[in-house]
Amino acid sequence: MRTYHDPLHGAITLNQTDPVEALLIQLIDTPVFQRLRRIRQLGPASLTFHGAESSRFTHSLGVMAIARQLFDRLAHRYIELQPYRATVLCAALLHDLGHGPFSHTAEEIFGSHHEVWTQRILQEYLPVAHCLNQFSPELSHSIAQVYCHQHPVPFVWQLVSSQLDCDRLDYLLRDSYFTGASYGQLDLERILLAIDYDRLTQQLVVAYKGLAAIEHYLVVRYFMYAQVYNHAKNLAATWLLEQAFGRARELLAQGELAADETVQTWLQPKDMELSLTHYLAGDDIVFMYHLQRWQFGSDSLLADLCRRFLNRDLPKTLEVTALLPSQQQQLLQQLATILSQRSLAPKYYCGFRQVWSRGYTLYQRGIKLKTETGLQEISQLSPLVKTLTDPVQRVWLIYPAEVKTQLQQLRATLEHLS
Amino acid sequence: MRTYHDPLHGAITLNQTDPVEALLIQLIDTPVFQRLRRIRQLGPASLTFHGAESSRFTHSLGVMAIARQLFDRLAHRYIELQPYRATVLCAALLHDLGHGPFSHTAEEIFGSHHEVWTQRILQEYLPVAHCLNQFSPELSHSIAQVYCHQHPVPFVWQLVSSQLDCDRLDYLLRDSYFTGASYGQLDLERILLAIDYDRLTQQLVVAYKGLAAIEHYLVVRYFMYAQVYNHAKNLAATWLLEQAFGRARELLAQGELAADETVQTWLQPKDMELSLTHYLAGDDIVFMYHLQRWQFGSDSLLADLCRRFLNRDLPKTLEVTALLPSQQQQLLQQLATILSQRSLAPKYYCGFRQVWSRGYTLYQRGIKLKTETGLQEISQLSPLVKTLTDPVQRVWLIYPAEVKTQLQQLRATLEHLS
Amino acid sequence: MRTYHDPLHGAITLNQTDPVEALLIQLIDTPVFQRLRRIRQLGPASLTFHGAESSRFTHSLGVMAIARQLFDRLAHRYIELQPYRATVLCAALLHDLGHGPFSHTAEEIFGSHHEVWTQRILQEYLPVAHCLNQFSPELSHSIAQVYCHQHPVPFVWQLVSSQLDCDRLDYLLRDSYFTGASYGQLDLERILLAIDYDRLTQQLVVAYKGLAAIEHYLVVRYFMYAQVYNHAKNLAATWLLEQAFGRARELLAQGELAADETVQTWLQPKDMELSLTHYLAGDDIVFMYHLQRWQFGSDSLLADLCRRFLNRDLPKTLEVTALLPSQQQQLLQQLATILSQRSLAPKYYCGFRQVWSRGYTLYQRGIKLKTETGLQEISQLSPLVKTLTDPVQRVWLIYPAEVKTQLQQLRATLEHLS
Amino acid sequence: MRTYHDPLHGAITLNQTDPVEALLIQLIDTPVFQRLRRIRQLGPASLTFHGAESSRFTHSLGVMAIARQLFDRLAHRYIELQPYRATVLCAALLHDLGHGPFSHTAEEIFGSHHEVWTQRILQEYLPVAHCLNQFSPELSHSIAQVYCHQHPVPFVWQLVSSQLDCDRLDYLLRDSYFTGASYGQLDLERILLAIDYDRLTQQLVVAYKGLAAIEHYLVVRYFMYAQVYNHAKNLAATWLLEQAFGRARELLAQGELAADETVQTWLQPKDMELSLTHYLAGDDIVFMYHLQRWQFGSDSLLADLCRRFLNRDLPKTLEVTALLPSQQQQLLQQLATILSQRSLAPKYYCGFRQVWSRGYTLYQRGIKLKTETGLQEISQLSPLVKTLTDPVQRVWLIYPAEVKTQLQQLRATLEHLS
Repeated sequence: MRTYHDPLHGAITLNQTDPVEALLIQLIDTPVFQRLRRIRQLGPASLTFHGAESSRFTHSLGVMAIARQLFDRLAHRYIELQPYRATVLCAALLHDLGHGPFSHTAEEIFGSHHEVWTQRILQEYLPVAHCLNQFSPELSHSIAQVYCHQHPVPFVWQLVSSQLDCDRLDYLLRDSYFTGASYGQLDLERILLAIDYDRLTQQLVVAYKGLAAIEHYLVVRYFMYAQVYNHAKNLAATWLLEQAFGRARELLAQGELAADETVQTWLQPKDMELSLTHYLAGDDIVFMYHLQRWQFGSDSLLADLCRRFLNRDLPKTLEVTALLPSQQQQLLQQLATILSQRSLAPKYYCGFRQVWSRGYTLYQRGIKLKTETGLQEISQLSPLVKTLTDPVQRVWLIYPAEVKTQLQQLRATLEHLS
Repeated sequence: MRTYHDPLHGAITLNQTDPVEALLIQLIDTPVFQRLRRIRQLGPASLTFHGAESSRFTHSLGVMAIARQLFDRLAHRYIELQPYRATVLCAALLHDLGHGPFSHTAEEIFGSHHEVWTQRILQEYLPVAHCLNQFSPELSHSIAQVYCHQHPVPFVWQLVSSQLDCDRLDYLLRDSYFTGASYGQLDLERILLAIDYDRLTQQLVVAYKGLAAIEHYLVVRYFMYAQVYNHAKNLAATWLLEQAFGRARELLAQGELAADETVQTWLQPKDMELSLTHYLAGDDIVFMYHLQRWQFGSDSLLADLCRRFLNRDLPKTLEVTALLPSQQQQLLQQLATILSQRSLAPKYYCGFRQVWSRGYTLYQRGIKLKTETGLQEISQLSPLVKTLTDPVQRVWLIYPAEVKTQLQQLRATLEHLS
Repeated sequence: MRTYHDPLHGAITLNQTDPVEALLIQLIDTPVFQRLRRIRQLGPASLTFHGAESSRFTHSLGVMAIARQLFDRLAHRYIELQPYRATVLCAALLHDLGHGPFSHTAEEIFGSHHEVWTQRILQEYLPVAHCLNQFSPELSHSIAQVYCHQHPVPFVWQLVSSQLDCDRLDYLLRDSYFTGASYGQLDLERILLAIDYDRLTQQLVVAYKGLAAIEHYLVVRYFMYAQVYNHAKNLAATWLLEQAFGRARELLAQGELAADETVQTWLQPKDMELSLTHYLAGDDIVFMYHLQRWQFGSDSLLADLCRRFLNRDLPKTLEVTALLPSQQQQLLQQLATILSQRSLAPKYYCGFRQVWSRGYTLYQRGIKLKTETGLQEISQLSPLVKTLTDPVQRVWLIYPAEVKTQLQQLRATLEHLS
Repeated sequence: MRTYHDPLHGAITLNQTDPVEALLIQLIDTPVFQRLRRIRQLGPASLTFHGAESSRFTHSLGVMAIARQLFDRLAHRYIELQPYRATVLCAALLHDLGHGPFSHTAEEIFGSHHEVWTQRILQEYLPVAHCLNQFSPELSHSIAQVYCHQHPVPFVWQLVSSQLDCDRLDYLLRDSYFTGASYGQLDLERILLAIDYDRLTQQLVVAYKGLAAIEHYLVVRYFMYAQVYNHAKNLAATWLLEQAFGRARELLAQGELAADETVQTWLQPKDMELSLTHYLAGDDIVFMYHLQRWQFGSDSLLADLCRRFLNRDLPKTLEVTALLPSQQQQLLQQLATILSQRSLAPKYYCGFRQVWSRGYTLYQRGIKLKTETGLQEISQLSPLVKTLTDPVQRVWLIYPAEVKTQLQQLRATLEHLS
């Protein structure tokens, strides 16, 4: 028996005598899975929500725990699903294996895609590949099919990666728990009870009486995006981090960056491919260490960007959604002039950031409800969900705190003219 | 208005127009306070309780929030306390400023004491010293008095550092929240309502009707020590970390350690003093980075210890509390022989770890209850608390997983003989 | 000090030395307020959600606690509000004083309106009227102004009775807590922090940055109506109770009902007015007692209805929203025929029940947000709220469990034809 | 599928196609089980903790839910337990069937024992007896064996009724949830995981590593008794209720009590036996109704006692534990004199109330831990539990609020003399 005490799901117990669960234990014990302890779930979000300090490791366990609960209940009723247990649970556990430093933030900065790397790790990283092959020679392939939505039984991939999957259920719950954003509290039990398997189409479907539970889940998702993930302060922190790494990349190209081999390879031009070893050597620790070191390096620009990030001296944001594109550009130019006068290079100190929040898309087959007249797309049954499919777009101008007063004056003038 | 959304205490709001709270904002914004984001509250405990990933930063905000709530309620009734508001709140906020890498773990490894460093930072670190002095020339001194329990009004230091202080209240609650150990849930509200100020002795006292709330708090503390802080797996993880740094120190003395200046100064002999700059440069990031690097270094022993720690390949533990000291030594020697045969240097791969858990001590004036016949020590009124003053001692033998079977055989033989 | 330990709001402490809070204590101690302990918050809803057993008493304390928290924070900033403290807190505490047996259920059954009775109690019931007058001769009048939305300062009545008031905040939270419907969990703190006072219009307004908190509140309200208050089983239980009292009223008119004076006066024709004494004598206890007694009375119809209610042998429901009105009528007639054959009088054993659920209406001035360009109605800023203004209507056919199979066949036939 | 949404245990789902669960549904649907909705779990405790309004019905479902969770896990491992599933689950569900008005309060007042009545109902109440017999002719007998601790497999009765049973687990959790006493929060999951079955002795035992979870449970129990169940205000409320019914019984003996048949039979001398029908007709509703009615009856003493209870005009309490018995008697006599002068009959308006709180007794075989050297009694392994076996006794003098000042003076004088 191996027990993981989780603040959200309670005791997650794995049984050594169950072959699938014994495999899960082996996988958890690989260095590549333990590496997820060193990658924060929400990247720099803890600078905005100080409790958001948890790692991909805890989330990955949670996704597996939810998937097991859901799968075991349904496979008890639909016994034809039972052969897929290893595929579902491994896919759930390992889905984030390919994440890099600062989670999604890394993807924007380094141009990597965690899904691609997860696939590569499954095939090329021996301790994992070995475990999977020993269990069954087809397992690795069938997990890969889950990730690219090509598993012959759609239910199997939908459980792990769809509009209503165990990944989203865990991260919404978990991020709500750690950030203290109580509007993110899902009713996990009612959602799980609502999820069903449709024998005919082999899809994940929702019982009609579970409509409200799913509506609620989608609303919660909308709120978490609008209020946490896309919080203006979080966007500013992420933007600042990007500027620092952008500058580091320039210095590296000029041969002027002090960095170890891992960071050097990560910062090489985006079209050059990283080796698996170099990729896996990259985690929050390595990059945070370099940010700390660069504070005292010779490039004063990079030093300043690093200092601001580490000391949480974050840029400010001004919402400019309501302005015309021409007005936005005008504002940016005026801001650039002011920054130049203060010797703050505009390229690194200001810019736009645009986000779309929506609670639901039809992407990935949407969510199907079982009704008396057959399966129906949820957005056609629920006006609330229909509304959530309309993305809410917001645009922010990011600028350094030093020029706050001046920028507000510029903004006011613009108001006046328009 | 500055708001920190805390998962435990909800919105912690600081008001710029209140001079004390404006000072708190300034202090939070100093680099030395932001550094606490890079020091985990429970060191390596997340290897045992995966949710325990939160930092000293979040805890420090929490202690200040509890102190403010308690102080403001009592200072409203006992107005003579009002002049101490800045002292109490700053002392609460800054009490952990001097923590080093891995929190308490660092203290054992590096021989540093966070209290000493907190005091030095207050005096020598200019951004903090400047803020405090600008507020009042005496503030820094009076905070120092809190930390060494010499403030003329005992209540002022007791609130921050005593057997019933805001520090303990926050960490018990917080560690319970993040580890998922629900027996650590305090009834914070009832405890705070029970705490009172005794005008005559100027002490923190407990209203008689609050006896049960305080008994419960002490019981919770006992459970958290016995089950979380002193969990055998956590002891093993900490022990492993110590061995790694012990080996690194040896290599440094031999001039064979690859390490940056920060780590070199931290690992110099314990009697050499660190500069403040070097001290503050040490955090979890720097040391974790080196552990990662040393995995691939030339010393195979250090590399192995680091690898085990990072991949969570932790030593096992065997409780030997019930054995005689001579039996314990005998076991250790037999174990050493086995390890030597496997080329595992006993000095680094096995040892004893002894802990005492108790819920209460009379240290720091104990806890006083207001009764009809005057103040009384709680352990004299409550049989439950009296029991908690008896320390429960446990001894563990730490050994590598490879020899588990052999060690259990040795243990069984010993049983037989005794 | 008087402390009420509330599972939702923690310790609700009233201070005898504060004149307003001393008044609240006096009011709580009146028999008419204690009577609320004998009236369940959700009438017969505990037959559907077994945890829903809490009373109007606990809710009333909760509304006062929320109102105090919100009012005190705003009156600290807008000191011109301070003179209204007694009005706001008393109005919040007493707003449900006029409720009758089974809360809202009584209103439908007996044609009474709790608001009207609350007003009468304030004026005519001496222990309350006396307390209020002693505090201030105008207090009673100004509370009455709150209830009819005519207080000169709109903020004062909006806090107690509007689209965003302390009454709704408490009951949504409380009903969610007791029914276990976790999608009803509001983020009370964020909502309260979002609420502000607009000096110019003297209205309750919402800060723009609180938009999401209020959107979430309205969504929660929608879910609680759709899933709890308007749950089909709850509608069926309420309907059955109405049939029982309807029959009792008929028997009384015929002089054939065994009932005490209280019940007799409550069951007299709706246009005859009850005395205050008779009204207040009516509570859940008295009516439940009579239901129990009538089970063994001479009228077999009433006995059967009472028996079904007390033993939770509730009618079934069939959703007929999608049918044309003519189809609905056709179904009802066919059902009536079947019931008659089984000697179940259709008049008492079947019928329609129609409900509208919506999360928001513009009624009572709506909810105003402070924006850069002035106050704006929330439904114009939020597509989500706009969607919630569209009522979702559902129609249920209620019928006895005995004919379930037959009714389903009828329904299926209808499907076929349409 | 039948689902009960419970605020503590979430969805409690019963499956119609499982024979045991189908039986449970039938039992829940009997009138005698539905009657438990009309009996409050904690009698008059809601006068002290206003949230404590929940019924025996919700508790009974909860006990069954916990028992099922625990039993199913263990019977999966120890398959020899499987034949006892019906016995365990029915015994858990029905264990409180025999409770009378105001739960335990009734037992003191009316001299009835709910265990005796539960047994009688099982045998004599046809709807229940019929369900059980149809399932198996031995079931009723084997449930009876559980209740009198004579089932051949001790584990079977221990699960339902022992020092560590599902009954206690549910009521501690539930009462904590509804009263808001957060120190009553058990770690249900860890406790359940700690409980094991010992094949040799067929007993319920606790795994050694679960020691802390069980210690915590016993401490929680101690706190709930000391702080909630034996709260002085709750003792006073119960005492007042007893006085009212004591007076009613006297009046009945004199032929001067207005009461219906149910109440008359319940109030007849304690040695006369009630019929099952009369017993079951007694619930909170019937007795509360009579209390309301007697307020306006001809006996002014009974009217006054009822009025005080219904309006929560409760007696005060003075702790006299520290006084000598002779001093206690002296105080009572002086109090009696004062009451007589005010025409308050001492017999009904004052008296002593003595309670013992302890967290643990050795009664019912105690709790056994599995250790390396065999089963051991928990109180011998845990100093904390050992302490909890010492009962804490407290004595209260109950008196009417009117004479508070005078009584405090008397008490002070006594202090002086002693």
